[in-house]
Amino acid sequence: MKYQTAITKIEDEREFVRGYSLEELTTKKSFVETVYLVLRGELPTAAETRLLNALLTAAIDHGPGTASGQVARIVASAQNSPHTALAAGILAMGERHGGAIEGAARFFQENKETGHIAGLVQSLKEQKIRLPGYGHAVLTHDGRSDVLLGVAKETGFYGPHCALAEKIGAVLNQISSKPIPLNIDGAMAAILLDMGFDWRLTKGFFIIARVPGLVAHIYEEMAGGEGLRRVPEEEIEYSGPEPRAL
Amino acid sequence: MKYQTAITKIEDEREFVRGYSLEELTTKKSFVETVYLVLRGELPTAAETRLLNALLTAAIDHGPGTASGQVARIVASAQNSPHTALAAGILAMGERHGGAIEGAARFFQENKETGHIAGLVQSLKEQKIRLPGYGHAVLTHDGRSDVLLGVAKETGFYGPHCALAEKIGAVLNQISSKPIPLNIDGAMAAILLDMGFDWRLTKGFFIIARVPGLVAHIYEEMAGGEGLRRVPEEEIEYSGPEPRAL
Amino acid sequence: MKYQTAITKIEDEREFVRGYSLEELTTKKSFVETVYLVLRGELPTAAETRLLNALLTAAIDHGPGTASGQVARIVASAQNSPHTALAAGILAMGERHGGAIEGAARFFQENKETGHIAGLVQSLKEQKIRLPGYGHAVLTHDGRSDVLLGVAKETGFYGPHCALAEKIGAVLNQISSKPIPLNIDGAMAAILLDMGFDWRLTKGFFIIARVPGLVAHIYEEMAGGEGLRRVPEEEIEYSGPEPRAL
Amino acid sequence: MKYQTAITKIEDEREFVRGYSLEELTTKKSFVETVYLVLRGELPTAAETRLLNALLTAAIDHGPGTASGQVARIVASAQNSPHTALAAGILAMGERHGGAIEGAARFFQENKETGHIAGLVQSLKEQKIRLPGYGHAVLTHDGRSDVLLGVAKETGFYGPHCALAEKIGAVLNQISSKPIPLNIDGAMAAILLDMGFDWRLTKGFFIIARVPGLVAHIYEEMAGGEGLRRVPEEEIEYSGPEPRAL
Repeated sequence: MKYQTAITKIEDEREFVRGYSLEELTTKKSFVETVYLVLRGELPTAAETRLLNALLTAAIDHGPGTASGQVARIVASAQNSPHTALAAGILAMGERHGGAIEGAARFFQENKETGHIAGLVQSLKEQKIRLPGYGHAVLTHDGRSDVLLGVAKETGFYGPHCALAEKIGAVLNQISSKPIPLNIDGAMAAILLDMGFDWRLTKGFFIIARVPGLVAHIYEEMAGGEGLRRVPEEEIEYSGPEPRAL
Repeated sequence: MKYQTAITKIEDEREFVRGYSLEELTTKKSFVETVYLVLRGELPTAAETRLLNALLTAAIDHGPGTASGQVARIVASAQNSPHTALAAGILAMGERHGGAIEGAARFFQENKETGHIAGLVQSLKEQKIRLPGYGHAVLTHDGRSDVLLGVAKETGFYGPHCALAEKIGAVLNQISSKPIPLNIDGAMAAILLDMGFDWRLTKGFFIIARVPGLVAHIYEEMAGGEGLRRVPEEEIEYSGPEPRAL
Repeated sequence: MKYQTAITKIEDEREFVRGYSLEELTTKKSFVETVYLVLRGELPTAAETRLLNALLTAAIDHGPGTASGQVARIVASAQNSPHTALAAGILAMGERHGGAIEGAARFFQENKETGHIAGLVQSLKEQKIRLPGYGHAVLTHDGRSDVLLGVAKETGFYGPHCALAEKIGAVLNQISSKPIPLNIDGAMAAILLDMGFDWRLTKGFFIIARVPGLVAHIYEEMAGGEGLRRVPEEEIEYSGPEPRAL
Repeated sequence: MKYQTAITKIEDEREFVRGYSLEELTTKKSFVETVYLVLRGELPTAAETRLLNALLTAAIDHGPGTASGQVARIVASAQNSPHTALAAGILAMGERHGGAIEGAARFFQENKETGHIAGLVQSLKEQKIRLPGYGHAVLTHDGRSDVLLGVAKETGFYGPHCALAEKIGAVLNQISSKPIPLNIDGAMAAILLDMGFDWRLTKGFFIIARVPGLVAHIYEEMAGGEGLRRVPEEEIEYSGPEPRAL
C-alpha cells in the first residue's frame, strides 16, 4: 500500500473529509470550520471556530515588504504563473519569517512545567539564545498579540501556554534594554497549544493565514505591469578582486 | 518608489487592510470575509460570504493521490520543513491540476456573448481542443459542481457565466461518447466570474482552498514516519541503450 | 509500469547513464561531456564539448541583482536550507528572466525557412510583438553573444539558426530608435538549435549554467549574516483607501 | 547599500567573475573550472579540475525513482514550465535525500581530531544516532565512493577527512549486522573538505551535479506525453473515521 491516510476518503465518486460528506460540509459548514476539521479530525465548537477565525485573520497580510511578499512579487514580475509565484513566496517563510511560531510553540510546550521562569529566561539571555516568538523587526509593541490573547480569554482558551508566554514576555522586558514584545508568532503559538494542537502543526496555520495575502500581492503585481523587478546597479556594492588577467 | 500597493498600510505600528484596522477585523470579521476583502478591496455581503465559504470548502482536499498531494508528501518524506513541502505541492498545480479553473474562466469570459454555443463547442471538438473545466480523471459526474451551482442560485449569484457553463456541458454530453462533466474547476470559474472576480484571480481561490488540505497531508506524513518515499525499482522500466563500452 | 526512462539504468547495484557505466564516466569523462550525454543520449565530439563549455560558462552568473539572484538571497536570508533558497531562485526564471531562450529558440525554429526576414520583423514590430532573445534591460550591446557566436563559428556549429538570429538583429537595429542587441538568450538559443537540440530543452541549459552562480550567492548570503532582508517602509507607497471604520 | 557581493562585477557593460572577464573565461576556461572559480574565488589547478569533474559526474543522475526525480516528473506531468518542475525536484532534496552530504561534512570536520574513532562510533550506535554519509536504501556497497576516493588519491587530495571517513566505515561494518557502506554523500563530503571547501557548501555541489539529470527527466516526461500522474485509488488505504452524519 503506497499511501495510508485518515484525511479524505473517495468512494463511489463521493468525497468524505474525516468521515463527513464534502458536499454536506460545503453547504452546512464554513471554510474555517472545515479547515479545523481537516487538520484536527473533528469539527470545532463555536468557541473554537471564533478563535481560529481570529488567529487566521490576524496574520492575513503584512505588506509587500516582508520576505515572502517581496519574493512572491519579484517572481510574479518575471511573468510566472501565480502558483509559481506563490510557492516562491512560501519558500521565504524560513526560520526568520513565520518560523518563530514553530520555535515558540516547541519552547512553550517543553517548558510548560518550569517553576522558575525568571531563571530560565536569564540563563537564555546569558547564553545569547534568542527566544522565538518575542521581538519584532519593526514594531516595539505587537498589538496583534493583545487582540489574539483577548479573544483567547473570551473564548475560554487562555490556558497554561498563554500564561507562560506572557510571563516570559514580562521577564524579558524587565531584563532587556529595548522592548522585546511577545509578537504575533509567539501569541499564535501559545494559543494553538492551548487549543490542543501539536507544535509541529503551528507554522501551518501561519501559512494558511498568509496565503490569501500573498495571492493578493501577486495579482496586484500582475495587474500593475511594472515589468521585471531587479536590484538597480547602484544598490549593489562589489567587494571582490579587481579586474585581473587570466 | 520600489513597491506601490493598495492592499495593506502599516502606520505607527498599526496595520490597515484595504483601509480597515487589522485588529478590528480580527475581532469583528471572519477569516473568509477578510480573504474576500484582501482580494476584492471591499468587505463581502452575507450572500457573498456564504458563497465564498462554499467555494473554498468544496476544494479543501482530494486525497493524497493528486499531483499536489503526492508531491507534498514525497517532499515531506525527505525531511524538509513543512513550508518547503507545501511549496512543492503548490508547484504541482500546473495546467493539468487546478489550472483548468483559469482556462475555463478565461474561456467563459471571452465567449459570454456567443449566441451559437453548439456551433462553438462542435468546432472546438473538431479541432480537438479540450475545453478546460470539463471532464475528470476519476469522476464521471462531479457532484461538487451541482452543490456549488446550487449555493450560487440560492445566494443570487447564478448569472450569465454559470448559465453558459451549464449550456456548454449539455452540448458536450450530447456530442461525446463518454461523459464530460462540468467539473469543480469549471463551476468555480463560472461562479467567481458571476461574483465579479477577474479570471486571472480564479486559480488563486483554488490554491487558497487546497492549502489546508495539503498542510494536513504534510503533517500526516511527518507524523507517520514512513521514511523517504521512492519509486520501487520494479515500477521503473528502462528503455534506453544497453550497457556499452566507452 | 509507473515510469519508463531511457536515461539511467540501475542493475546489480551499478548505474549506467545512456548505456555507459557511471563509474567509468566518472574517471574518463568530464562533467560537461556527461551533461551532454544525459541530455542528448550520446557523448559529444571535442568540438561539441568545447562549444557546450562556452555556452554554460557564459551564463554562469549575472550578479545579485537579477530576479533569481535577489530571490535566492532573500530566501536564504530568512534562514532556509540552501536547496530551498536555490529552488526559489530558479522559480524566478519566468518568461522575462531566462525564459527568452525558449521563446527565441521556438521562433528561430519556426521561421528558419522564411525568405523575407525584413518583412517578418517589420510586421512583428507593427503588431508590437517583442521578439524574445533581443534587447537587454541593462546592456546596449551584449558582448557575450559575440563571443558565443565566435566559438560556434570556430567549432563549425554556426549554422542556419545562428545566421537567422544575426540577420534579425541587423533588421531590428535598422528599424528601431534604440539598440536592440541579440542577447545571450538569443545567441544560446540559435547555437543550441544548430547543435541539434530541441527548442524545448534550451532553457534547461540556461538553468544548468546559472545554478552554480546562484549557489555562490546563497553561500555568500549565509556567510554574510546580514539577517532577514525586507523592503524598508520608505520604499513602499500605499495607494489604497485611507483608514476607515468597519 | 542593499547587496554586497564579491562574486560578480558588472562594469561598463562587461562582466567580471571573481575579477576575471567572463568573456575571456568563456573562451579560455571550461565550465567546471568556472564553477570552481565562482564558488571558491580562485581558479583551480589541473588536479582540482579533474577531481571536481569526477565529483560532479558521479552524482549526475540516479533514475526517476529518487524523491527529486519523481517529484520533478510529477510536476512536469501537470504541464508546468521546466524551471518550475526543476525547482520542485530540488525541493525534495531534504535531510534524507542528498542532505547527508552536509551532515557528513559537518561531522567529519568536527571530529577530525578525534583519536578514538571506535569509541565514538560505538557511542553513537548506542544512542541510536544514525551517521549521515553511510548506508544506502538500495545498494549494499556504493562503488561510486571507491571510484571517487580513487580519483582523490590520484590527484593528491586524499587527506585527513577521507581517511577518517574510511576508518569510520570500517568500524561501522565491524559492529553492524548489515552492511553500512560509505555512500556517495559521505565520500563527496570527505573529499570536498580535503579540497578545502566549507561543509556548508557541500550540498551545493550535489545539487549542481544532479540538476542536469533532473532536466533530462523533465524533458523526457514532457516529450513522453503520459498525461497527469496521480496515485491510483487502489494504492491508497483510508484509515480514518467511516462516513458519518454532520
